[in-house]
Amino acid sequence: MSLQGVKIIDLTRIIAGPFCTQLLADLGADVIKVETPSGDPLRAQGEKVNDFSWYYAGYNRNKKSVALNMRDRDGMAVLKRLLATADVLVENFRPGVLDKMGLTLEVLNDLNPNLIVCSISGFGADGPYAQRPAFDFIAQALSGFMSVNGEAGGAPLRSGLPISDLVVGLYSALAISSRLVGRDTNAKSGVQTVDVALTDSMISLLSFQAANYLAAGVEPVRSGNEHQLVAPYGVFDTADGAIALAPSNDGVYRKLLAVLDMEHLLEDERIDTNEKRMKDRALMREILEPVFKSKGSYHWIQTMNAAGVPAGPILSVPEVFADPQVRHREMVMPVDHGDHGTVQMLGFPMKFSENPCEVRHPAPDLGEHSADVLHEAGFELDEISELIERGVVRTNEITA
Amino acid sequence: MSLQGVKIIDLTRIIAGPFCTQLLADLGADVIKVETPSGDPLRAQGEKVNDFSWYYAGYNRNKKSVALNMRDRDGMAVLKRLLATADVLVENFRPGVLDKMGLTLEVLNDLNPNLIVCSISGFGADGPYAQRPAFDFIAQALSGFMSVNGEAGGAPLRSGLPISDLVVGLYSALAISSRLVGRDTNAKSGVQTVDVALTDSMISLLSFQAANYLAAGVEPVRSGNEHQLVAPYGVFDTADGAIALAPSNDGVYRKLLAVLDMEHLLEDERIDTNEKRMKDRALMREILEPVFKSKGSYHWIQTMNAAGVPAGPILSVPEVFADPQVRHREMVMPVDHGDHGTVQMLGFPMKFSENPCEVRHPAPDLGEHSADVLHEAGFELDEISELIERGVVRTNEITA
Repeated sequence: MSLQGVKIIDLTRIIAGPFCTQLLADLGADVIKVETPSGDPLRAQGEKVNDFSWYYAGYNRNKKSVALNMRDRDGMAVLKRLLATADVLVENFRPGVLDKMGLTLEVLNDLNPNLIVCSISGFGADGPYAQRPAFDFIAQALSGFMSVNGEAGGAPLRSGLPISDLVVGLYSALAISSRLVGRDTNAKSGVQTVDVALTDSMISLLSFQAANYLAAGVEPVRSGNEHQLVAPYGVFDTADGAIALAPSNDGVYRKLLAVLDMEHLLEDERIDTNEKRMKDRALMREILEPVFKSKGSYHWIQTMNAAGVPAGPILSVPEVFADPQVRHREMVMPVDHGDHGTVQMLGFPMKFSENPCEVRHPAPDLGEHSADVLHEAGFELDEISELIERGVVRTNEITA
Repeated sequence: MSLQGVKIIDLTRIIAGPFCTQLLADLGADVIKVETPSGDPLRAQGEKVNDFSWYYAGYNRNKKSVALNMRDRDGMAVLKRLLATADVLVENFRPGVLDKMGLTLEVLNDLNPNLIVCSISGFGADGPYAQRPAFDFIAQALSGFMSVNGEAGGAPLRSGLPISDLVVGLYSALAISSRLVGRDTNAKSGVQTVDVALTDSMISLLSFQAANYLAAGVEPVRSGNEHQLVAPYGVFDTADGAIALAPSNDGVYRKLLAVLDMEHLLEDERIDTNEKRMKDRALMREILEPVFKSKGSYHWIQTMNAAGVPAGPILSVPEVFADPQVRHREMVMPVDHGDHGTVQMLGFPMKFSENPCEVRHPAPDLGEHSADVLHEAGFELDEISELIERGVVRTNEITA
C-alpha cells in the first residue's frame, strides 16, 4: 500500500475530516481515530442496521478507534504520547481550538518536530471570517458554487451532496500525501502545517466561469441542464424516459445528425452554426425532441455511443447501484462488520495495478482499539487498566 | 516544494487531466505538457486577452510545453526518450488508445520500469461501458449526482461547474502523489498503473444518500435548498437580498431562536421537534421569513454568526472575487504572463506553512519549452534543430 507505515492521529468528526482520513487509510495509512467518550456524532446519524450507522461506516473504514476524555489532564497526556509517535495530525476544529486544548504549535513541536498538522476549517485559519461558524451549505453559498447551479432563470441552488465537505476532504488528503513524498530525505526540524478551507476549495473549482469573468467580465449565469457555450446539449425526453446528450463540438454535432438521419439540418440556415443554435435552443428542441421521443433511451444511447456521440442515462441512486458498469467497477462493495453484519458501502475510485486499495479493518466500534493502540504506543497494561477504570479511556469491551 | 524533483509527462487535454497535473505542478512537480502541433484545444476556448485564453491559463500554470507530432515515428521516439527519464505519465485518452500509439505496458516497462502510469477516463479502463464516449455531463448523469441535484419536485439537474472533471482530477492527483510516497524504499521493477474514472469518482461522493439507500432502501430525493434531514434550513429572503441558513441541530436551532427573540417557539407544539418542523416546512417559513425580511442580510449574518449559527451570503462569481475573506486568502491572484500581460487566476487552496505552493512558471505558449526540455533529456542541439526543421517538434520561437 502507498501509505503503509504512515501513522495518522485523526481528531476529526462528521464528514470533511473523516473523508480525508478515510482516503489516506484506504491508501494504506494507519489512521487512529481519537474520539470523545461519546464518539463521533455521525455514529448517531443516518439509517442503522444492527445498531450500526451505515453513514458512519461509509466514512470510517480502515481506521482504529480510541475513545479518550481529552478534557482530563491524563487523557490529554495520552493524546500527547500518541502524537509523539505519529507522522500526521488531522483536525477540523474551529481555528484556535487546538491552541485552547493546549496543543499549540510550540507544544506540538516539542512533542514531535516531524509532525505534519492538517487543519480543515470553513473559511481558513485567518482572515475576517475565520471565526464564523461553518457548514457545507454556507461554503456552497459563499464560494459562488450555488450561483452557477440551478435552472435558467431560477434561484441559486445548493448541491444535493455535501460537496464542499467532500472536496475539502480530497484537497486535504492530497496536501498531506504530497508532504509525505520525499519526507525521509527532506526531514526537517519543525512542525509543518497545512490549512485547507471549505470555501477556498470550492472557489478553486470555479473553472471557465471564473476565467471568463476575470478575463472579460462575462458574468456566469445559471443554465440548468443546457451548456452555457454549446447547443444542442442537455436532457432530452425519449419514448420511455430521458437521456443526457453532450455533442460538445461541431464534429460531434455532425455525428449526431448522421445517427438521426437528419443531415439536412447542416444546411438549415437558422441553425447552421453553434452560435445560432445557442440563440434558438427552443427551435433545436422543437426539431429534435419528436425524433428522440420516437424510440426508447436504450436505443438512443447505444446508437449515439456507437457513432461517438456522448450520451447516457440519468440514473437515480438505486439505479446507479444496479448498473452493470458500476457493479463491474465494484463501486458498491460488501464489508463484513462482525456483530453488525455485512455493510454495503461505496467502493474505491482509485484502481491501482499493484497493492490496490482494500478494506483491512471495518469501521470501528467506539474505543474498539483503545487498549491495543495505547499498548503499541508504549503504555503498560496496568496503566491502561487504570485509565479505563477511571474513565479517561473507554473501550467497547468494558461497556459491552 | 513537496514534489520537487518529480518529473511528469502529461499527455492530457481540456480539463480533467490538466487539472490533475496542475495540482501536482502547484505542489512542486516538474510537469512537461506534451501537446500535438495544434496544441491543447483549451487554448482556443474561453475569453482571450492579448490572444491568450485565461481558461487555458487557469489549468496550465507551472507547466512546460513541448509540441510534438506523435504520429511521426521520430516524434514518438522523442516521447519515448522523455518517458525514459520520467517518474509519471498521465493520460486521458479513451482506454486502448495508448496501446494503439505503441505505448503498451510492455513497451513502457522496457523504457522505464519505475514509471507510474495514471489513466483518466469516463467510465474506467474496463467494464461494459469502457469504450463509450465520455463527457463531464454524462458522468454527472450516470453517477446519480444529477438525481440528487435540483429543486424539490423538479427535474434532475447538472452542476454548473464541470464537477466530474474536477473531482476526477483531484482523485488522480491524490493517487499519483500517494504512489510517490516511499517510492525510493519501495522501488519495484515494473510499471504501475492507476485507472481513475469520472463516474467512479462521482459515485464515491454519494455520501448519506448512498448509505441510507443501501442500509434501509431510503430513496434519495431532490430537496432544492432544503436539507433532507433538518428544518428550518435553506435560503431565506431578507430586507435586501437573501441568506443561507444552516441551524444543523436542536442546539443551534435554540441559538437561532434566541437571536430572533422568538424562544416562545420552543413551546409551540406544532414545531417543537425537528421531525415536526420537517413535516411543516411551509409553516416554519411563514413564521420566520417576515422576521428575516425586517432587516438586511448583513445584520442577520453578523448576529447569527456571533451567536454561533451558521449563516452566510449567497455570492455571485463577481461578488466572490470582491469578498474580503476571499481576497485575504488570495483565492484570486495575478500572474505575469510576459507578452500576454497579467492573467488573474484562481489561487491555491492548500496553504502550507513551509514551502508553499507558488507560481514558478506562467502557463506556457505552445512549444515554449520544446528545445529546453529535449536538451535536458540528452538531445544534441543539431538533433533538435533538425527535428524542428522537419516539423516533428514545434517551438513558439520558430513560429513567432
